[in-house]
Amino acid sequence: MMKKNILVLLLKMLIFMGLVGQENNEIILPKPRMQGGKPILTALKERHTERDFSTKELSNSVLSDLLWAAYGVNRPESGKRTAPSARNKQEIDIYVVMSKGTYKYDAFNNKLIKIIGSDIREATGMQPFVKNAPVNILYIADFDKMGNDEKMNYVWSAVCAGAICQNIYLFCASEGLATVVRGLFDSKELSQKLKLKPNQKIILAQTIGYPMK
Amino acid sequence: MMKKNILVLLLKMLIFMGLVGQENNEIILPKPRMQGGKPILTALKERHTERDFSTKELSNSVLSDLLWAAYGVNRPESGKRTAPSARNKQEIDIYVVMSKGTYKYDAFNNKLIKIIGSDIREATGMQPFVKNAPVNILYIADFDKMGNDEKMNYVWSAVCAGAICQNIYLFCASEGLATVVRGLFDSKELSQKLKLKPNQKIILAQTIGYPMK
Repeated sequence: MMKKNILVLLLKMLIFMGLVGQENNEIILPKPRMQGGKPILTALKERHTERDFSTKELSNSVLSDLLWAAYGVNRPESGKRTAPSARNKQEIDIYVVMSKGTYKYDAFNNKLIKIIGSDIREATGMQPFVKNAPVNILYIADFDKMGNDEKMNYVWSAVCAGAICQNIYLFCASEGLATVVRGLFDSKELSQKLKLKPNQKIILAQTIGYPMK
Repeated sequence: MMKKNILVLLLKMLIFMGLVGQENNEIILPKPRMQGGKPILTALKERHTERDFSTKELSNSVLSDLLWAAYGVNRPESGKRTAPSARNKQEIDIYVVMSKGTYKYDAFNNKLIKIIGSDIREATGMQPFVKNAPVNILYIADFDKMGNDEKMNYVWSAVCAGAICQNIYLFCASEGLATVVRGLFDSKELSQKLKLKPNQKIILAQTIGYPMK
């Protein structure tokens, strides 16, 4: 046990010193902006759904701003976030499905943690654009963090996912990105690919990218 | 039939001329702003829940801006709105519960239609503040506009309600208002008071007002 702790400590030191890379398992995101953008009512006026995506990738900087707007920590002192959750259970995890792999958003450390190294964008939905757009987001609720009333767990986690997806709509309206929220996907296939626990439920999906010119 | 049309036309003319009042059944809202407010990322930074409300009423002008931000028509040419709904079914109705009565928001005509003339704010929730805060909103989904899969109807209407409630959170962050979204209320009692159809489901509630100084 003692030896194991020392080994873990040594590894952490090596990672900290940059002698062991973490590139394969994590993407450290740049600090998000947290201010600016179009005025809120103007963004609401311009909010819309767009289904024609360019294949152009989002930079890590845009991705960081987008994910922070979506469900970032906006009050570090309390760990509270840009969207509400019932009793602050924060049951929704955001999975970011891109060509280079699928990552889970770690809002507290502002990084992406690799879940799968291959491109599973096509499995995130039924429409042809999902496999070409740079980013598909999956909203996955962990019912183990919630109560025993399954219906209410669905309702409340869907409310939370809805609030997050609207943050993304408004961010996209502000930044000239295209997005569409989607309710149809093969939940069983996706759950297997992502090795989800039985109590992790995929509530919603959303595609994001630059508009097709 | 001819005579009835003439009578309807005459009534409309009298209403237009202000000779017959509509005050008892409707509140015509002033035109909403549709631009301006704090920058979107700044509003997201400041977004938070607040449960201490002043009893100060919202003016019709603030109410109009708030409801437009929430779920107004932002593209009059298509009738599309500031929040998404699955297959654009627009199944959510916004009921505005105030001291002077309960009204349904008619986004297309920018008015409030009276449902009940008495003050039922206390019935909208379990917390003491609901009866003193000036506005409680109920998100009521009409499942008759949706498909036959009740679970998916709950999920998708909750996503829509979540998106709308987040619009209100951001509007409140921009305008210095206080708000809290709430999942607990006596659905049966409220449905009876509002004379809802069996397929109208109260998905969510939200309290809005000025913060207690």
